[in-house]
Amino acid sequence: MISSKPVRGTRDILPEEAKIRDRLEQQILAVYRAHGFSRIETPVMENLELLLGSDGGENLKMLFTILKRGEKLNFNPEASVLDLCDMGLRFDLTLPLSRFYSNNQEVLETPFKAIQIGNVFRAERPQKGRFRAFKQCDIDIIGDPTVAAEIELIDTTAKALLAMGFAGFTIKVNHRQLLSEVIIKAGFAADQVGTVCIALDKMDKIGAAGVSSELIEKGHQQEQVDTLMACVTGIELDNLAQWVEDTAAISELTELINTVKILAKGQFKIVFDFSLIRGMGYYTGLIFEVSYGPYGYSIAGGGRYDNMIGKYNKVSVPAVGFSIGFERIITILMEEQKDARQIEPAIIIFYDPQTNSMVDVIGAADRWRDKGYRVNLVAMKKKFGKQITAWDKGQYQGFLVFGRDEEIKKF
Amino acid sequence: MISSKPVRGTRDILPEEAKIRDRLEQQILAVYRAHGFSRIETPVMENLELLLGSDGGENLKMLFTILKRGEKLNFNPEASVLDLCDMGLRFDLTLPLSRFYSNNQEVLETPFKAIQIGNVFRAERPQKGRFRAFKQCDIDIIGDPTVAAEIELIDTTAKALLAMGFAGFTIKVNHRQLLSEVIIKAGFAADQVGTVCIALDKMDKIGAAGVSSELIEKGHQQEQVDTLMACVTGIELDNLAQWVEDTAAISELTELINTVKILAKGQFKIVFDFSLIRGMGYYTGLIFEVSYGPYGYSIAGGGRYDNMIGKYNKVSVPAVGFSIGFERIITILMEEQKDARQIEPAIIIFYDPQTNSMVDVIGAADRWRDKGYRVNLVAMKKKFGKQITAWDKGQYQGFLVFGRDEEIKKF
Repeated sequence: MISSKPVRGTRDILPEEAKIRDRLEQQILAVYRAHGFSRIETPVMENLELLLGSDGGENLKMLFTILKRGEKLNFNPEASVLDLCDMGLRFDLTLPLSRFYSNNQEVLETPFKAIQIGNVFRAERPQKGRFRAFKQCDIDIIGDPTVAAEIELIDTTAKALLAMGFAGFTIKVNHRQLLSEVIIKAGFAADQVGTVCIALDKMDKIGAAGVSSELIEKGHQQEQVDTLMACVTGIELDNLAQWVEDTAAISELTELINTVKILAKGQFKIVFDFSLIRGMGYYTGLIFEVSYGPYGYSIAGGGRYDNMIGKYNKVSVPAVGFSIGFERIITILMEEQKDARQIEPAIIIFYDPQTNSMVDVIGAADRWRDKGYRVNLVAMKKKFGKQITAWDKGQYQGFLVFGRDEEIKKF
Repeated sequence: MISSKPVRGTRDILPEEAKIRDRLEQQILAVYRAHGFSRIETPVMENLELLLGSDGGENLKMLFTILKRGEKLNFNPEASVLDLCDMGLRFDLTLPLSRFYSNNQEVLETPFKAIQIGNVFRAERPQKGRFRAFKQCDIDIIGDPTVAAEIELIDTTAKALLAMGFAGFTIKVNHRQLLSEVIIKAGFAADQVGTVCIALDKMDKIGAAGVSSELIEKGHQQEQVDTLMACVTGIELDNLAQWVEDTAAISELTELINTVKILAKGQFKIVFDFSLIRGMGYYTGLIFEVSYGPYGYSIAGGGRYDNMIGKYNKVSVPAVGFSIGFERIITILMEEQKDARQIEPAIIIFYDPQTNSMVDVIGAADRWRDKGYRVNLVAMKKKFGKQITAWDKGQYQGFLVFGRDEEIKKF
């Protein structure tokens, strides 16, 4: 007998969760659309060359790649993945969007405000709460270089989170250019910025002292590390000019935070967090992430990536995006039971398969459906009492026996 | 510069189509749910062993397979796809559902009425209107061996098609067991039933004479072919007993067609079509397909597959399903422009990025959103007249200039 388990690191979604997922997706989509964003869709697979040529960072190590078809494969022991495979599954929705924009630019609005809701795939080590296939809900603004784009994305995403019942979340913001400036001013080389950022990214978990030791262990000089950490621990929104000179970046960061603070109306927080790094190599400006409650992971994240579209396009186009981690939202809602199971009007009509005409049974069901009920038709078994008990699981308000009951009976 | 085209045989979905797709998907889902079906979801990838072990027929030649990760690959020139790959993309939603049912049976309703809406993948030769990734909308009833299940599936699918604006379609019905009986009685061997069916399947295109010649060319005897074709062209719903003996099959077919005829209320037709074959190897009983207008392809199809779940499950469980071909529905609706673009209340608020506060601009937008408008915020350019002309494409009813207009102005 063949195993009936889903592939490693993925899972089946059962009816009760699927219902909640559908509702949340519709809530998110409604807020996104009300704010002028338009949904688009791209295939789950992309050319492997495109994926491998991206700034996907760690995600490139977690690619699912698809074997070439209809041609002799190169079985040379030196064969690379590009000899064997020609496509891969997308690891995020940002790279496909950049390709999409370049491919369809002439028929899109300017600036283009995109909605993408779809699955992405990463061959991560399976662990609790992490899946190899998971849904993301992204909005992006392409073609607006100003901080107005970040403000709109954060405003819209915050409203979507509020609509789903989240409140009191915190949006952390940082700026890639300020980070680079600080790291280089502390005496690190430009090509060390990436590795220093990887260490800084652990601030949440190992604290400033931990980050310092890690940098020293990696062979960086004590003086540089001390200079860097003094800034990292001392820098604040109202003393930025003491530490950095990039006035454009300072004013973007300040305008974003001050504007969103007012828009938040006390329902959520927005804070400057200089230890916020975000892994993706492609960010170029403001970056942001949403944390919520005691959960040690972000529920949304994004940032500006002004250089990506230029890879596929004659001219470079500024872009910024914000992505809601749908699986994390669902996990929290199901854990917190915020989503008190919404009882919808639903009944069962039991019928006798020996004597009742399906025409009459369906006719009766349709009359209840016209009144707004979800109606499930079920053939009666001989042991009807036992059968009723099996159906009494809270999904249905009651039942009718066709030809006997005129009113809904409780289980 | 890297190509910005989507992978071969797939396509990008633009905002206007995405909007129609979302609406149709919600319409289909609403009808399915009202009829007591529950949505589930499975991953797009399945274990390759499962896919290859299925009765997928021709679809197995069109599998997209995923390279193994994190282990040395076997580069032996004799290596099979199973040496190199461990997963594949699903080619339909029926096989994953059978696996899902076996994996989750103990928490599912009995009978279980499933909704699946999702993409499937087949490496078909790219051609007009055929894609390598396409959406299907399936309903299945698992655990009901009687024709009541077929009646419910056809009733529900027909209502979904009617809700989307299709009318006057024809549901063709046949029965696999009658087909087998006729073919064997004509003198063919049991193991020739499959190849004879492949020839019969071309009846629509090449006619009875064409099918006869093809069977003769394949080496079958004239007498057998003549006996078979006499039945194929002469058999009708009211003379079934003249040609076949399987009374259970005859009564299923007759009950289904007579019942659905009444349910149809003249809005669509249901007919017996003995040349209906349907490719999938796994069907065991009634099979059905929906044709519409002048289009040479079916817009929905399905049938009973009582032996599939037994492959993953201790006990065999009867099952029947009906699938709407979403891409075909969309193609027809867009060609027939049935979907006269639904104008939704949507406006643009133009603002001056130099002087307006984003807090005020977003506040004004929210007041229009509260009235039910979709509001897009766009920064004014210096050549505002030219900018307005560029936005006048019928997607928005009008616009406002922030701080100047109180009422919506026409473009």
